[in-house]
Order: sequence, then C-alpha cells, then structure tokens
Amino acid sequence: MVHLTRRYWFSASHRLHNPALEAAENTLVYGKCNNPGGHGHNYHVEITVAGPVDARTGMVVDLTELDGLAEREILNRFDQINLNDDQGFASLVPTTENLCVQIYHIVRERWTDLPSARNARLERVRLEETSSNFFEYTGEGD
Amino acid sequence: MVHLTRRYWFSASHRLHNPALEAAENTLVYGKCNNPGGHGHNYHVEITVAGPVDARTGMVVDLTELDGLAEREILNRFDQINLNDDQGFASLVPTTENLCVQIYHIVRERWTDLPSARNARLERVRLEETSSNFFEYTGEGD
Amino acid sequence: MVHLTRRYWFSASHRLHNPALEAAENTLVYGKCNNPGGHGHNYHVEITVAGPVDARTGMVVDLTELDGLAEREILNRFDQINLNDDQGFASLVPTTENLCVQIYHIVRERWTDLPSARNARLERVRLEETSSNFFEYTGEGD
Amino acid sequence: MVHLTRRYWFSASHRLHNPALEAAENTLVYGKCNNPGGHGHNYHVEITVAGPVDARTGMVVDLTELDGLAEREILNRFDQINLNDDQGFASLVPTTENLCVQIYHIVRERWTDLPSARNARLERVRLEETSSNFFEYTGEGD
Amino acid sequence: MVHLTRRYWFSASHRLHNPALEAAENTLVYGKCNNPGGHGHNYHVEITVAGPVDARTGMVVDLTELDGLAEREILNRFDQINLNDDQGFASLVPTTENLCVQIYHIVRERWTDLPSARNARLERVRLEETSSNFFEYTGEGD
Amino acid sequence: MVHLTRRYWFSASHRLHNPALEAAENTLVYGKCNNPGGHGHNYHVEITVAGPVDARTGMVVDLTELDGLAEREILNRFDQINLNDDQGFASLVPTTENLCVQIYHIVRERWTDLPSARNARLERVRLEETSSNFFEYTGEGD
Repeated sequence: MVHLTRRYWFSASHRLHNPALEAAENTLVYGKCNNPGGHGHNYHVEITVAGPVDARTGMVVDLTELDGLAEREILNRFDQINLNDDQGFASLVPTTENLCVQIYHIVRERWTDLPSARNARLERVRLEETSSNFFEYTGEGD
Repeated sequence: MVHLTRRYWFSASHRLHNPALEAAENTLVYGKCNNPGGHGHNYHVEITVAGPVDARTGMVVDLTELDGLAEREILNRFDQINLNDDQGFASLVPTTENLCVQIYHIVRERWTDLPSARNARLERVRLEETSSNFFEYTGEGD
Repeated sequence: MVHLTRRYWFSASHRLHNPALEAAENTLVYGKCNNPGGHGHNYHVEITVAGPVDARTGMVVDLTELDGLAEREILNRFDQINLNDDQGFASLVPTTENLCVQIYHIVRERWTDLPSARNARLERVRLEETSSNFFEYTGEGD
Repeated sequence: MVHLTRRYWFSASHRLHNPALEAAENTLVYGKCNNPGGHGHNYHVEITVAGPVDARTGMVVDLTELDGLAEREILNRFDQINLNDDQGFASLVPTTENLCVQIYHIVRERWTDLPSARNARLERVRLEETSSNFFEYTGEGD
Repeated sequence: MVHLTRRYWFSASHRLHNPALEAAENTLVYGKCNNPGGHGHNYHVEITVAGPVDARTGMVVDLTELDGLAEREILNRFDQINLNDDQGFASLVPTTENLCVQIYHIVRERWTDLPSARNARLERVRLEETSSNFFEYTGEGD
Repeated sequence: MVHLTRRYWFSASHRLHNPALEAAENTLVYGKCNNPGGHGHNYHVEITVAGPVDARTGMVVDLTELDGLAEREILNRFDQINLNDDQGFASLVPTTENLCVQIYHIVRERWTDLPSARNARLERVRLEETSSNFFEYTGEGD
C-alpha cells in the first residue's frame, strides 16, 4: 500500500458572501473578503491515491490517466474563472473549505476514469489557498 | 552599496479586458482571462532598495518604515480587491505588467515616507503572478 | 470533517544544554549546538484544526480568531527571543521537540479563545526548524 | 509521542522498462519514460521517526546518527547513479513507487544503527520525484 | 521597459565525460558524475524577456506564444531524455553551463516565432540544476 | 560569460545592539531585536561566480573547490554560533547587511583557493535572513 500524491494548480476568484445573511453579518463574518468585487488566489490542489504497487508496471496509478481526469474535471472547470459563477456554488459559499470538499467529490465520482486505479482508492484532497493556509478532506463524515 | 529586498503578498482578482477592442479581439488577446467574472492570484511583491549601509545602525533602510509604507500604500489598497475596481486601472488593463509599473511608481512617490532611506534609492519592483511567471520594473524608460 | 492548517513563523535562538549533565556529556549529546552563545532559526509553525464545515459560514474556524490566538500566545511570546530565557524552558532543554509539544499545549489550553471552533478540535502542531527537519505533535501520549 | 522528519536529496536517472513486457506494451505503459537513454530527477527523501521525547536529551532521535545512516545507506548508494544499475532493481522496474518502498526497507533493516532510537520506530518514508508528485510508504501491507 | 520571466521544467539525465580526456582525468574532473550510467535532474528553466508594455494589450509578450516556443523547442527536445543522446551534445560535454548556453541560443534563433515580442529582446536564460545551484546566460561574449 | 550560483545555509543567532548608542536609542533603532538574549535565523547564502565556460571541462568553476571554500571559511565559522561572538563583529553590529558584506570579502580574499576560477570573478553574495527579506552585495563601493 503506497500513497501517490499529484499536484496541480489553477487561478480563480471568489467573493465570500452568504445571501441568507444580512449585510452587516456578512461583513462581520467575511470582512474584506465580502467586498462585492471579490478577490482571488492561485489554488494548489493535491490528489492523493492509496493503493498497491502493480507488479507489472511498478505503479499505483497511471499518471496520464490521473492528469487527464484532473484536466477535464478540475482545471477546465475551475481555472481562470470566478468561483461564484460555478454551478457547484449556486447555493453554497465558495470558501476554500467548500471547494476542497467539492473537488474530493468530483474526483471520487469520476474514479472509473482511472482504469489503472481499480485496486486503489482516493485517499485525500488537499487544497492550498495561499502559502499560509491549506485545507484537507478525506471523505470522513460523508 | 548593498541591495535590500523585502517581500510582501496580497490576493486580488482581475479581468483582462480592453474596452477599446472588439469582443472578438479581446478573446483573441486574452483568451480565458477575458471571461466576464475574472479570476485571481496570490501576488508576491518584492521591493528592492539600494543604498549604503548606515554606519550607526548597520542598516540600508529601517524595515519598520518600509513595512509601514508597503502596508499603507500597497497592501491596504490592493489586498482582497478586484483590481478592475481600482482607480489606477480606470483606463488601463490590469495586467501584471501594468500593476508592477504602478507599484513601482507608488513606492517612488512615497519615498520620503522612509527617512532612513534618504541616501538610498528604489532599485526595482518584482511582482510574481504565479509560481511560473513574474515581472520586474526598474524605472527604465520612465 | 475538514482539516484546516494555518502557517506562522518566528525567529528565535536557543542553546542546547542540560544542566543535569556533565560538560563532556553535553558536548557529546549536542555537539556544536551546545556552544555557550547558542545559535538560532526561523521557525515555521503550522496549526491544524479538524472540524465540520459550518453551514452558515462555510468555514471550519474563523481565521481572524485563530490568527489572534497565534499572535497573542505564540508569536508575541517566542518571536525574536532566546528560548532559553522563556519560562517554559526554565527546567527543560529548548529542543525543537520540546518547543513543538509546548506550542501544542498552549494552543489547546487557549482553545476557548476560538468561539467559532467550538465543534472543532486541535489536530496537530507541526514545527519546522530548518528546511531539512520538522517535528509534529498530535497530543498522543498526553 | 513526537514525529521527527528529516529531509535529504540525491540525483539519479532511471529508465522505466519491464523486460517481461513486449516493446509496444512498454511504450504504452511508460511512454517517453521508456526511451533507452532514460532520464533523471532530483529526488527528495523524507524519513519520519515516531517516538517519545527522551527526558535527558529532549530529542526523539540523535540527528547525527540518522544522518549517518542516511549517508551510508541511501545517499552513497543512490546519489549520482543510474537506478537501473542498482542491485535492488535487478528484477524490479525502478519506478519511484518501488524506490520508495526499497528505501523504507533499507532504513528499517538498519534501525539498530540508531541506538538513540531504541524506543522509536520508523513511521514513514516520503519520496518526491518532482515538485508535482511524491510517494509515501508506511510499511502497511509488508 | 519591463522584464517578464516565465518558468518551465523538464527531467533529463546526463553523464559528464569528455572523450578527449583520459579516464583518470575524467574521474578527477567529474568525480561520481563521470560514472558510465549517468544520473539526472529536474531542470527548471526561466526565460526572461525585456521589452516595453504594449499599450493595446498591456503585455510585454503574449504568453501563449512564449509557451508554444518553449514547448516545441525546449521541452519536446529535452524532457525525459538522456542529454548525451541529443545532437547538441554530440561534441560537447552536457554540463548545465553548456545546456544553459544552448537553450539561450535556441530561443534566440526562434525569436520570430514570437510576433508579439517584435519590440522586445531575450534578456536571459536561467537554468536550475538542483535547489542548490543554477546558471545564467545573457548572451554576453557571443 | 556564464553566471554560476551556489546556495548554502547555516543557523546563527545575533543581537542587534550598538554599544556607541544609548539604551533608549538602541531600543528605538532595533526594537525587539535589541533584547539582551538575541534571536536567530536560518541564513541562506548564495555565491555567484561569473566566468567563461572552460572548453575542456564545460564548467565555470569546479564545484568541489567552491564547496570546500564555503565549508572552510563560511560554514565552519558562522554555522551554529552567536554572530556577536565572532571576531568580525567585535566592533560592528551583526546586521545581515554587515554579514553579507563580510562574507563577500571573505570569499574574495580566498579566491586563489579556487584554481579552476582563475579566469572568473566573484560577482555577488546574496544572503537571505528570512523568507521575507534578503540582501545582496557586489563589491560596489569597496
């Protein structure tokens, strides 16, 4: 059982705002992150796969397959957009916590796009918002 | 003559769009960066000061003074905003090239906020947009 | 259940010396780190909080609260000091192992300073001494 | 129970090729990594030791001992070589997964070279192949 | 006049060996880097372009053009190969000094592939061999 | 003419204090850095050598020679010490500006320890104090 982690990045913007809250409460909770124009980040995302090393290939998962999934489902969708415009955040505040959980679910739902990972599992998604904070989700509590 | 460089960072969003161009031309020039919602970055800015080492203090410039200037003029202004909303980009596309030149001019105009740097000069502003590209301006051509 | 990690840093010095040991034994155990003048490091500390994502805010913990706690209890206390002068090391050698455990206990004892984390828990403290070694404590064995 | 992690690095080359497979299959599985001349990496390896903090020394393990083991058994053996020439890969494809597991086993077998770690255990080996992917092995499944 | 720097990376192997020298001299000059199997690195290359900011686009050079040139001429050629097999090193030792100069010349010769850089010039190529050493060439002495 | 830069690091402590100044003035100038116990840093030093690529070896300077000089003259002297105890700071405040200039002079004075660099010159010393500030000296004004 070896863990493989692959790292990708994308640039996006977000505005932290919960329409169910009053303006004053939004300011209190989100501070400057609530300004109407939003702001943005370079997000670094790490996908960790846990599985046995295949005796024939010496690999946990074929990186070409994993890169393809990440490109199609994560980077094409989130790179160079405003997260508030994404369907996943139609009724969810696009905090990095919520984005991390979303990316985990996206990868898990597309797991069969990775034929070489049929004996492996998605272990964790880690999402860096800045060089000073990051988030991790392992599916615990789903 | 010693060069001192100090590093700061802020998060902002921008949309690359030149209103003087047709929609098709904007798409051609800026690609996905032209999407109406914009996207964002963690910008890392480095300010380089060149000057003699003060014999009394052993310093090129008092870092408390430099940090104060950066806080008041750069971080308070650009952190957690949409650059397109900033007055400096009212008639200028907020590319990182243009932002780098703007920051250089802001620092140079506020140089007298740094009494300890009276024998020193602003050497360069360096602005990282992502971990894969950065921009530098030394005032050449001003 | 999402893990949030926040990163801070401070600069401090230490001398590794156990007064209960003979001089020769101190030299044997600590080598050059035992020299009377000490030496120092830029310490990077990461605090990991584990908890549910709050449905109202989309957050695990309010970062303003966490930053306040870190500022008051960790940075104000340990930044730009000699660790051997700190009360916590009056009878304890200030190795980075011991400092890591101390910081964990300080944060846990002040947990109620984080009202937004009432459903969350301190998961881990990670302390980097140099770019080549770091330490982690999760409270195991307390 | 504190975790200590120490980081080392070495430069090596490898060619991904399984002699039990046909040429076309090797190309399919390994792509450009199967080219006869091979290619190479700067590998960064992290060794994590878990153990109690020794009351006398304030340490989990004596770093001089750990560095000696790493130098003798890992760096002397793998630095500046072609991994395909190493005896450990005589009948094993030198993927980074396999190299990670090998390094774990080498360190565990030489554990008695670390007298100061007699109450500690090898927790994990982490091996970075590039800044975009890394592997971890904890002995699970041995 | 703004400087734009773009960063790319590739993995390659090399053996340092000058066929014009005796075996003993090769060993003396190159040490372990002369071993017949070679070794390898993750090379990070930075291309710096100096030019005016285009008033219409706000850019020094179109990054899509620059990325295309780098992909076609540098990455396709050097990524995942043994540098000793490259035609550029048929009669030249593939030290990183020589590779840095070669990459500079390749980019300069293909400069017309960058229509948006017609008012700009290649300023510098910087090539990192490891996290501890790098090389720079500005064309001085050509 | 190629520039080669090699990176080293050491850990040291310092107290910023000018005995020629009053206590109040020392506090004003140096703030918390003036506390009697001092504090410390992991210093990263980069030595840049400029020279032609030797036609026989393909190198600017033999790294074994440069590493030897750095080990003997810089690391043995400054690693794991209190800079205030060093003879070079007997009558000089050990700011990182002053340390940077000192290291430049040490390397230049020992240049003949580098026979392979007889056609090359010391271009620059760069010294990082923290991940947020660094200093550079090129001998300008000597």
